[in-house]
Amino acid sequence: MSAAPQQPLTDLTPDQLAEFTAGKRAAYDALVARGLKLDLTRGKPSGEQLDLADGLLALPTGHTDGDGVDVRNYGGLTGLRELREIFAELLWVEPEQVVAGGNSSLTMMHDSLVQMLLHGPVDGMPWRGQDVRFVCPVPGYDRHFTMLASYGIDIVTVPMEADGPDVAAIEALVKDDPSIKGMWIVPTYANPAGSTISHEKAARLAAMPTAAPDFKIFWDNAYAFHHLTEEESKTEDIISLCSAAGNPNRPIMFASTSKITYAGAGVAVLAASTDNVAWYLKHYQFASIGPDKVNQLRHVQFFGSAQGVRDHMVKHREILAPKFAAVDVALARELDGLGIAHWTRPTGGYFVSLDVMDGTASRVVALAKAAGIALTPAGASFPYGDDPDDRNIRLAPSFPVLSEVEAAMAGVATCVSLAAAEKLAGRHVATASTPEGE
Amino acid sequence: MSAAPQQPLTDLTPDQLAEFTAGKRAAYDALVARGLKLDLTRGKPSGEQLDLADGLLALPTGHTDGDGVDVRNYGGLTGLRELREIFAELLWVEPEQVVAGGNSSLTMMHDSLVQMLLHGPVDGMPWRGQDVRFVCPVPGYDRHFTMLASYGIDIVTVPMEADGPDVAAIEALVKDDPSIKGMWIVPTYANPAGSTISHEKAARLAAMPTAAPDFKIFWDNAYAFHHLTEEESKTEDIISLCSAAGNPNRPIMFASTSKITYAGAGVAVLAASTDNVAWYLKHYQFASIGPDKVNQLRHVQFFGSAQGVRDHMVKHREILAPKFAAVDVALARELDGLGIAHWTRPTGGYFVSLDVMDGTASRVVALAKAAGIALTPAGASFPYGDDPDDRNIRLAPSFPVLSEVEAAMAGVATCVSLAAAEKLAGRHVATASTPEGE
Repeated sequence: MSAAPQQPLTDLTPDQLAEFTAGKRAAYDALVARGLKLDLTRGKPSGEQLDLADGLLALPTGHTDGDGVDVRNYGGLTGLRELREIFAELLWVEPEQVVAGGNSSLTMMHDSLVQMLLHGPVDGMPWRGQDVRFVCPVPGYDRHFTMLASYGIDIVTVPMEADGPDVAAIEALVKDDPSIKGMWIVPTYANPAGSTISHEKAARLAAMPTAAPDFKIFWDNAYAFHHLTEEESKTEDIISLCSAAGNPNRPIMFASTSKITYAGAGVAVLAASTDNVAWYLKHYQFASIGPDKVNQLRHVQFFGSAQGVRDHMVKHREILAPKFAAVDVALARELDGLGIAHWTRPTGGYFVSLDVMDGTASRVVALAKAAGIALTPAGASFPYGDDPDDRNIRLAPSFPVLSEVEAAMAGVATCVSLAAAEKLAGRHVATASTPEGE
Repeated sequence: MSAAPQQPLTDLTPDQLAEFTAGKRAAYDALVARGLKLDLTRGKPSGEQLDLADGLLALPTGHTDGDGVDVRNYGGLTGLRELREIFAELLWVEPEQVVAGGNSSLTMMHDSLVQMLLHGPVDGMPWRGQDVRFVCPVPGYDRHFTMLASYGIDIVTVPMEADGPDVAAIEALVKDDPSIKGMWIVPTYANPAGSTISHEKAARLAAMPTAAPDFKIFWDNAYAFHHLTEEESKTEDIISLCSAAGNPNRPIMFASTSKITYAGAGVAVLAASTDNVAWYLKHYQFASIGPDKVNQLRHVQFFGSAQGVRDHMVKHREILAPKFAAVDVALARELDGLGIAHWTRPTGGYFVSLDVMDGTASRVVALAKAAGIALTPAGASFPYGDDPDDRNIRLAPSFPVLSEVEAAMAGVATCVSLAAAEKLAGRHVATASTPEGE
């Protein structure tokens, strides 16, 4: 690895740039020659993290919950009381405001959206047939965008900032336009920006006037407990804030243990006003006779309490923090001073958001792919996969082992600088090592 | 218990009827005085049946499937290959025609219906906004009816017969009316009639011309392997029949292990043409990152093979068959010869369908409730809970232990004869033991 140059690439003379580019190309060719096969595409827990929850495999002990209910049988649409109590404490709500469901909060979001389309939210008419738009901060979570798009719901973007979304922009959008029916947000350790919404911004979202009387906030609390440092962000209590502002039915919160126990076999929860909970259950009763209560009991016994969840998250932090540090080290070593990239240093969550030189994100991803490093497609953090600046790349360092993260990120850094140098030189140099397509 | 009279109630003289009624009322008052608390409302497995699957609680061993996939992590929307292979063999389809999902086939039916409403079926436009009706045999499964009703889908009923629904009536309905978009059927050991569709009728459903080009059969194979005798009905292969008739996308089959392993924590499957499977996954990818594969692996290891499922069902039969026999014995002892009731003697499934004297089913259920015997509400097997003849009662003897089934059914038989006697006497005799309301 070469040490980072001290001056921005844009300050180089043509000869210096040519020399820099040649050096990076050689480094890249060497990278390709290594034949790596690494994957930073998705926010998946690693095997080591999943192992932390293997106590689940020997649970539950017995098959009755604290109320004597046989969890093996049908029933109990709201989920086990004890699990709802644990999540109520974690999410700052009351147990009767919590529904414990299946293995996926994404599915609970989907079911909520579908019922708003077909039956209307608790305080409105069916959205289907109306002109419906959603506000989404960008960069954001691709699965939120694709779900909305799949139902033909237009997405209006606002910038994500260091303390949450641009609330002034949201306020301006929603106050006069009744077609803007909702917004989606990852409030804590946002995907991918890593930022946590401030109390002030959360309070403004709770209180802002909306032209749509049935405006909804999908509050995707996927990373509420997923700290990377000892300074733990407290997730804002949007439900109380909205209630205090006279908008109790505005927010629906979602969370899960997908990145606490097992990504594929955890438990998900929905939390909201009691009216929203009753609305959800009223419709969901036709779709289900009840969640997998055996798996819920398994989780109740595994955690024991809300504190058990918090304690468990410390073990995740100990595995994840070095990987996130490795991302930063690798990027800084290669890119500091070049003036062609910046990236987040998140204190929680699952992602690093990397902004490269405008117009080169797709090229970086393609170069990395040809070198055996799979990255999330450029643009994935924007609706319809379209990053207007072709700038943002979402890095997901959780899944590979530490040495792989180090190798992959050194390679990514090389790709970032090579793509920038090519761009400044006004051309892509075609060689055998250049990826085809894309 | 008195022995059954030898003559029909309608042949009795007024004095004889008065004497009969007085005797039944005394028997009923004695029943109430026993203070029973028994529940025959739902088709739930008993604790003894659930115990048969407790081997699941120590599974899975390890956490990788046969392809080396870590089942604890995200992914695999189609479900585990090995589980799909087991169900493909059981349902007479190919593994690529099977999706293995979560803990509820009802949820898979709901998700299919919702996607037909919002996106349209694989071969049609969205149903939402169109005039949509479904054909349902009656008596039938209340959850089918309530799901359709919840989306404003009108239900057209046809009679259920001993060899399946009245197919001639269905053919006549669907051939000219394009608003009839589908039908729902429990083909084997129907809920509650117990009948199994004949090969001839299945073939006619597969081949019948429909005015709606996107007509769908929701083939709810909930009891395909749930035999009560050694003479096992073979579930009809509707998918091949439809394919052979040139209507490959007409049927979607649903099944689950809810009444094989755990009612709340089993695995459900959908089986259909590969085009229908692709359609389902295309939409469901926005709602889920994958099913609970740990629970799927648990089931793969527990069963080992399709034969493992069949072998397991024999153990259920040994528990259930005596309960169904007890229902028949209790009803026959009290009601044979009275000419006021008839009931099914099913060879599989979970229900006995009891027809009482017209206009007395609600009264029987109310009398039973006041005596501490909970029955499914009268009319539950008809759309909107409305049995036009107030005649049918669904009996679910699986959940209580055998002695409770015997006690409950003797009580029900008393209620049936008392209600009929009251009806023939032209009045309900109000006494302290008469239930209020209902």
